Amino acid sequence: MEILITNDDGIKAPGIHVLAGIMQQLGHVTVVAPDGPRSGQSSALTVNSPLRLRKKEETPSLTVYVCNGTPADCIKLALDQLYNDNNKPDLVATGINHGSNSAISVIYSGTMGAAMEGCVSGILSIGFSLCNHAMEADFSFFEAYILQLTKRILAMEVPYGTCFNVNAPCGELKGIRVARQCKGRWIKEFEKRTDPHGRDYYWMTGEFLNAETDANDTDEAWLNQGYITVVPVRIDMTDYDLLTQMRSLEV
Amino acid sequence: MEILITNDDGIKAPGIHVLAGIMQQLGHVTVVAPDGPRSGQSSALTVNSPLRLRKKEETPSLTVYVCNGTPADCIKLALDQLYNDNNKPDLVATGINHGSNSAISVIYSGTMGAAMEGCVSGILSIGFSLCNHAMEADFSFFEAYILQLTKRILAMEVPYGTCFNVNAPCGELKGIRVARQCKGRWIKEFEKRTDPHGRDYYWMTGEFLNAETDANDTDEAWLNQGYITVVPVRIDMTDYDLLTQMRSLEV
Repeated sequence: MEILITNDDGIKAPGIHVLAGIMQQLGHVTVVAPDGPRSGQSSALTVNSPLRLRKKEETPSLTVYVCNGTPADCIKLALDQLYNDNNKPDLVATGINHGSNSAISVIYSGTMGAAMEGCVSGILSIGFSLCNHAMEADFSFFEAYILQLTKRILAMEVPYGTCFNVNAPCGELKGIRVARQCKGRWIKEFEKRTDPHGRDYYWMTGEFLNAETDANDTDEAWLNQGYITVVPVRIDMTDYDLLTQMRSLEV
Repeated sequence: MEILITNDDGIKAPGIHVLAGIMQQLGHVTVVAPDGPRSGQSSALTVNSPLRLRKKEETPSLTVYVCNGTPADCIKLALDQLYNDNNKPDLVATGINHGSNSAISVIYSGTMGAAMEGCVSGILSIGFSLCNHAMEADFSFFEAYILQLTKRILAMEVPYGTCFNVNAPCGELKGIRVARQCKGRWIKEFEKRTDPHGRDYYWMTGEFLNAETDANDTDEAWLNQGYITVVPVRIDMTDYDLLTQMRSLEV
């Protein structure tokens, strides 16, 4: 098996090295990671400046490249330059992200943007995130589950256009639950400050407001109970329910 | 009515000024636009550097701000700092993008990232794009349709979590069609060059490969026939069909 890995915390973040270690139990791993933090980069692409790709390490089971682009750039560039249509990776694995990507965070996450990118190219893709932003986060509880879950997903029939968003709470884990994306949004998002020249500036901050605190089938609900969550994520964003009610817009 | 507008081509692009002109026929317009091009920025957020917001213009029907962030930052910052929960815009309109955002481009588009951001906050949100990347693109055919379509969407019952991706082909327009997001992907994505120091670098380029050329209900199909397309876009990315088949993953 050939596994392509990236993340959005950059090559220096411990999470990607833990993931590369796990995935080497399944096959050969190629890491193409951003050269620094790219959190919150979503599916952003670098269109107005050139990309660089530098080989950093090579062993029989692992090749590591560093790229100056976004997580989605890393996957695009790897698929275009390191592979070809007859020789694609069997799996794109992203993360392990330092910080949760549950609920609406899926649309902002560079980790999930990269997983979606593998999915667009028809490759089985899984993003992994741990609910702890710290660089010294403890991934040990999560590790055994990642290998087991990846093997099970590899054995599934996954249709074109669906990838997986896997999140783990901190501390001891009770098991794995399949869940849907929780509704909610970030509030109190900016801290306003004034610079020494009297001009205002704003730091992004905020807290997550769960809009479905009574639901028991969302990723947030299961994470709060100590379970790893798996959300199947569709890159076809069409709202098919509403589509049939919109004919009156046609002229 | 109060309408909040942003784009991903930046404050200098003609498309956003055309859109602001159209929307002033419906109410007061607040523009919060990026200070330069942010194409392909998806739902990217600026988390590691501070944002600035500068008022540039104010008339009775129009207020214009410029921001150093991404399109999604512009909407987030506007909603957090210029409005409050009792006084939100009635509509978020984004674009008019210089270039199509049909098919899979919806996940890369900063224009649509900004529309999704309004949608996350429970505001009716529509992204508009014209299939012409040129700064001197002719929006005149599209203009009348935008006003009419916006009025019709405002009159609809739109559930929480759905926004709209509106694309127009170039030239004369035959009408409006409701469509689903076409499957496909970008191929031949990078042009490799060598710098004067002998090191390789890569420019993003590529062409769209339509994976459903036989379908007649996709945005690509209708655009190719000269119609404006409206795709309802859901921010809940859960694949509900697959969800029910995944219980075997649970432990």
